[in-house]
Amino acid sequence: MPEILLAKSAGYCFGVKRATQMAFEAADEHEDICSLGPIIHSPQLVKRLEGQGVRVVDAVGAVENEAVIIRSHGITAGELDELKKKQVTIVDATCPFVKKAQEHAARLNGEGYHLVLVGEEEHPEVQGIISYAEKDRVHVVANVEQAEALPRFSRLAVIAQTTQAFDNFRDIIAVCLTKARELRVYNTICDATSVRQKEARDIASRVELMLVVGGYNSANTTRLAAICREIQPRTHHVETADDLDPAWFAGVVRVGVTAGASTPDWLIEQVLERIEEVGEK
Amino acid sequence: MPEILLAKSAGYCFGVKRATQMAFEAADEHEDICSLGPIIHSPQLVKRLEGQGVRVVDAVGAVENEAVIIRSHGITAGELDELKKKQVTIVDATCPFVKKAQEHAARLNGEGYHLVLVGEEEHPEVQGIISYAEKDRVHVVANVEQAEALPRFSRLAVIAQTTQAFDNFRDIIAVCLTKARELRVYNTICDATSVRQKEARDIASRVELMLVVGGYNSANTTRLAAICREIQPRTHHVETADDLDPAWFAGVVRVGVTAGASTPDWLIEQVLERIEEVGEK
Repeated sequence: MPEILLAKSAGYCFGVKRATQMAFEAADEHEDICSLGPIIHSPQLVKRLEGQGVRVVDAVGAVENEAVIIRSHGITAGELDELKKKQVTIVDATCPFVKKAQEHAARLNGEGYHLVLVGEEEHPEVQGIISYAEKDRVHVVANVEQAEALPRFSRLAVIAQTTQAFDNFRDIIAVCLTKARELRVYNTICDATSVRQKEARDIASRVELMLVVGGYNSANTTRLAAICREIQPRTHHVETADDLDPAWFAGVVRVGVTAGASTPDWLIEQVLERIEEVGEK
Repeated sequence: MPEILLAKSAGYCFGVKRATQMAFEAADEHEDICSLGPIIHSPQLVKRLEGQGVRVVDAVGAVENEAVIIRSHGITAGELDELKKKQVTIVDATCPFVKKAQEHAARLNGEGYHLVLVGEEEHPEVQGIISYAEKDRVHVVANVEQAEALPRFSRLAVIAQTTQAFDNFRDIIAVCLTKARELRVYNTICDATSVRQKEARDIASRVELMLVVGGYNSANTTRLAAICREIQPRTHHVETADDLDPAWFAGVVRVGVTAGASTPDWLIEQVLERIEEVGEK
């Protein structure tokens, strides 16, 4: 059996762990309950919650007279208002770090700053954060090139999607310095992502096979696998233990395992068990 | 005679021009008058002012019952308090850009931020600015290495000595980003310095001889000469027309001329006239 190097930082981050716990507790408490979008990007976890009676709806309009769970990515200010008008029970599982970024956006906008949000425009977390600032005074910037295209401002504030890479954030701030005399920066990046990526790089460099566990729809798991693949081309992104191919293990002395922020522990454990089975053959 | 390429940005910056005018006007108005330190780093200009009755004193204690001129670099908050207690007429010729940096230091300190000032610790401008913040909450940082040695802070603000190079400021801010979650940046750098340096580089690359006019005690003139010397080794820092050596002009088709921020126009003109004389020989 190959030696397994399991990343300490594999799996649930603080915000996802909290959201998942809140969802299961709310499922216990409420007969009629839904989540606005899949609570996390793990189809297996979403299925378990469905077994507990939590249905997934894709818009506020689809929420009926039932409790509603806001997932860790958060929602837009407009959606929250709509929910409040419906007078349903709201279980707000927005990650506290995302919440903080939303609060910074609202406050900085109120204080008259133009806001640069370093992140991916289409990501629901980003859509949520920017909804707290006026549309014509917020600029989503994914990279240095987009930052360079910004006009000049008198006062500029910069925050980040919580899962952004620090180096990209830093490089964009260097560009923003040429755009305004006054700059306010709140580093809203959550360290969990960089810690997980750093450890994954380290493990990938010491093994012959690297497995990254997580939903195929999870952006952070996909990114994690890409980072590992740069170092160890024999890297596979797997969603469950069933995805493992025994052929991968030929000549493998050490196998590395890590997992995205939305991967439940039991899925990781099943992968570990499966490695042991494959190794025995 | 060689062709002369004179820098448009040669000589007095806005703050120095203003301070010099204020000093001559004050000399007209007041019988007894002194300046706290040489008004600018031009011995020739200081001598002219002495001819108008402005004596130079080196400390507030030496100010008698007379009007006192504060030079463009500014003074410390403590010195200003002392002057006010003496109830003498104060002619405050502090550069408005330096004043702004002092105000930022006081306000940011009052709002509870630790302050990083990017600059040269010993420079009187820096001594003046940092005096507006509490000693144990202000850190003068000259380069990236010194920034890396800083501890972590919860809230950090960064400003700069007005004559700092932008690239150094930017690089230090990148380091400060790793030191605090919240960062406030006021870019207090005056463009005059970088504009003058950029033009000097351009001219130095197009001539066989480069002359940089300014006080030997002027930091910005010395730096300007060093920048030109990197591009054209035949660069000379001269204080007056008398310093020109005809031997320098052998084989020179084009000569470049620039001057530091504290160099009076008439000194530059005398150098130009001297070049014409030398060229005729």
